[in-house]
Amino acid sequence: MNSLLAVPGIRLGTASARIKDMDRDDLVVIELCEGAASAAVFTQNRFCAAPVILARRHIAQCPPRYLLINSGNANAGTGSQGIDDALTSCRQLASLAACRDEAVLPFSTGVIGERFPVEKIESAIPGAVETLAADGWDAAARAIMTTDTVPKACSAGVEVSGRMITVTGIAKGAGMIQPKMATMLAFIGTDAAIGLSALQQGLKRIVDCTFNRITVDGDTSTNDACVLFASARSALPLIEDIDSGEGRMVYAAIFDVSLKLAHSIVRDGEGASKFISVEVRAGESEEECTVIAREVANSPLVKTACFASDPNWGRILAALGRAAPIDLDIGRVRVSINDVVVVSAGTRAPGYSEAHARAAMAKPELAIRIELGRGSANSEVWTCDLSYDYVRINASYRT
Amino acid sequence: MNSLLAVPGIRLGTASARIKDMDRDDLVVIELCEGAASAAVFTQNRFCAAPVILARRHIAQCPPRYLLINSGNANAGTGSQGIDDALTSCRQLASLAACRDEAVLPFSTGVIGERFPVEKIESAIPGAVETLAADGWDAAARAIMTTDTVPKACSAGVEVSGRMITVTGIAKGAGMIQPKMATMLAFIGTDAAIGLSALQQGLKRIVDCTFNRITVDGDTSTNDACVLFASARSALPLIEDIDSGEGRMVYAAIFDVSLKLAHSIVRDGEGASKFISVEVRAGESEEECTVIAREVANSPLVKTACFASDPNWGRILAALGRAAPIDLDIGRVRVSINDVVVVSAGTRAPGYSEAHARAAMAKPELAIRIELGRGSANSEVWTCDLSYDYVRINASYRT
Repeated sequence: MNSLLAVPGIRLGTASARIKDMDRDDLVVIELCEGAASAAVFTQNRFCAAPVILARRHIAQCPPRYLLINSGNANAGTGSQGIDDALTSCRQLASLAACRDEAVLPFSTGVIGERFPVEKIESAIPGAVETLAADGWDAAARAIMTTDTVPKACSAGVEVSGRMITVTGIAKGAGMIQPKMATMLAFIGTDAAIGLSALQQGLKRIVDCTFNRITVDGDTSTNDACVLFASARSALPLIEDIDSGEGRMVYAAIFDVSLKLAHSIVRDGEGASKFISVEVRAGESEEECTVIAREVANSPLVKTACFASDPNWGRILAALGRAAPIDLDIGRVRVSINDVVVVSAGTRAPGYSEAHARAAMAKPELAIRIELGRGSANSEVWTCDLSYDYVRINASYRT
Repeated sequence: MNSLLAVPGIRLGTASARIKDMDRDDLVVIELCEGAASAAVFTQNRFCAAPVILARRHIAQCPPRYLLINSGNANAGTGSQGIDDALTSCRQLASLAACRDEAVLPFSTGVIGERFPVEKIESAIPGAVETLAADGWDAAARAIMTTDTVPKACSAGVEVSGRMITVTGIAKGAGMIQPKMATMLAFIGTDAAIGLSALQQGLKRIVDCTFNRITVDGDTSTNDACVLFASARSALPLIEDIDSGEGRMVYAAIFDVSLKLAHSIVRDGEGASKFISVEVRAGESEEECTVIAREVANSPLVKTACFASDPNWGRILAALGRAAPIDLDIGRVRVSINDVVVVSAGTRAPGYSEAHARAAMAKPELAIRIELGRGSANSEVWTCDLSYDYVRINASYRT
């Protein structure tokens, strides 16, 4: 965390609004410099939170200058009162910062269905503004945590055409994780100059292959949002096309930070004791591979087997069989766990050793690789195991 | 269980094949009289077990006379060897009973991916045949259990046009439960005479509204099968149309037995401490209501909240929002738990009392009712909560 790189043009401040009456920071203000470009993706959940509705509306009206983020209350299921409350807090920040109300984007995470504590937020905003600093990323990553046990943050500094650019991102999320658009709050900043359409296109592409490929429990949140902002303070010329030579290098740096953030969410999944990648290869289409990978990754039976280090490959085949296309030839399916082949030609592999398979399953990182033998498309999804602690956390914590 | 009614024309026998080396019966033979009609539905899992493949093939060739059922080994993921093994055991029973091999339907449930213990089965078949008796339903219900903690069986005797007919059914299943076609082994017999096409049509209709509406963990098994047989031994004339006056009464009796069996599977769901019905009402179509009900019923967050008696209605709305059609107006949604209204107009209901809601959630039977306010279609799905014991059972038992 100490190695997080500041991003020129971006400052972050935090404060304690005591939303859950805890003595820790739970409010973040992110300031973007004049001229910064921002792109955002939000949850596809039809039941979306007040701040998501408002942030979508605001970003369509003018370039954002401030992001106002709180943990501890999701401001979801709060009806029109919730919208009014979110707007009130945006207005206060806008007035302190002397910008348009619409230049403030609100984000919330925490318990659903409780009245948004707008007075607490209002009393903490000035403190967060006072602490705005370029090195505020670490404190911000901590302030947005809920059931997270570790802060999630990542930086990359890369040289593109002789000029350094920086990418730093923070994220939170540990449960209600199967993003359909973006994950439960991720904020990624770069000092590269990127045109708005390239930024939006790049973000969509990146999110599809990173945050949208993780799952903890198959539950898509009401508050998911991922924002990418480019401050244009590096010396690198404006990028208008992410498929250009320089565009690709910048894209790769942002992709790398996003993927690490996505993985860190899974690693800290509620109750997780193992990090599991489910790779599906040799399918007819990427879509078909993703659907199968997701079904395997979401199967409670596969996840409890991983928790128990039980090489129960029948559960993997059962999950695959549910999601597979009707013309899948099971006789061509091959499955390996951390390079130990457990299934070939759709049945137990010749020379299968329960002891070897069990040893492979006992590792804290599991790679389940499924080969379909019907094409050349691949996909990968990341998840964690299902443990007693998942039940404990969700039977006792009101999220 | 003692009140199970014998069904004229149907006899059942059991024996111990010691498949899991346990001292209990694990093999069942069901004998159907000459002239009985049978209909069956099987799992839609692409990775289906050898007995499913063989039973589908056999029932297409001639009317079944015998069902051969074992617990302890699923004969799934066993390749062509598995098919050969299932066929060998069918042949032995056919030779003992002097019927065609194709008149025997095989069914298996238990661990996936282990070689089918055909010698053990063969040595136990004669004993099962010797015990064939009209009152064998109870012993059969016990012999097909795996992680089930209680046997599932149900009878109905009804008078139709002055003639008595009997319906008795047995089922098993506690995990890997989200049937797409039928549940993990259910066998239902009646002495009514029902034409084959009416029987098949009736079974499909019944299964769609009973076994296909339950879920324990969203995992569809590789071995699901549901068989309905009509011995034609009652005095009631042949039914060719389930929508005729008498047809409807017989259909209702079979439906009633099937629904009770389906509910008993959920009540005995792995680790279940609560029985939960999720009703979705006032939707535009039954399909839309079922999709939403299933999403709520499968949400690990809703299920852990039920386990904890936590009236966390935000999780219900979040699940509903994932599955809802794009044009759903959240402002018209109303949710109640055991008649305590928790959400109205898409937000916390006026007069909501946490204490009342918590008391409602603490009951062993929960009815979650969701009203969409956009039409007149309804649907209902049944599930159970997600407890520590689900993880314990599936982290320690090799299914």
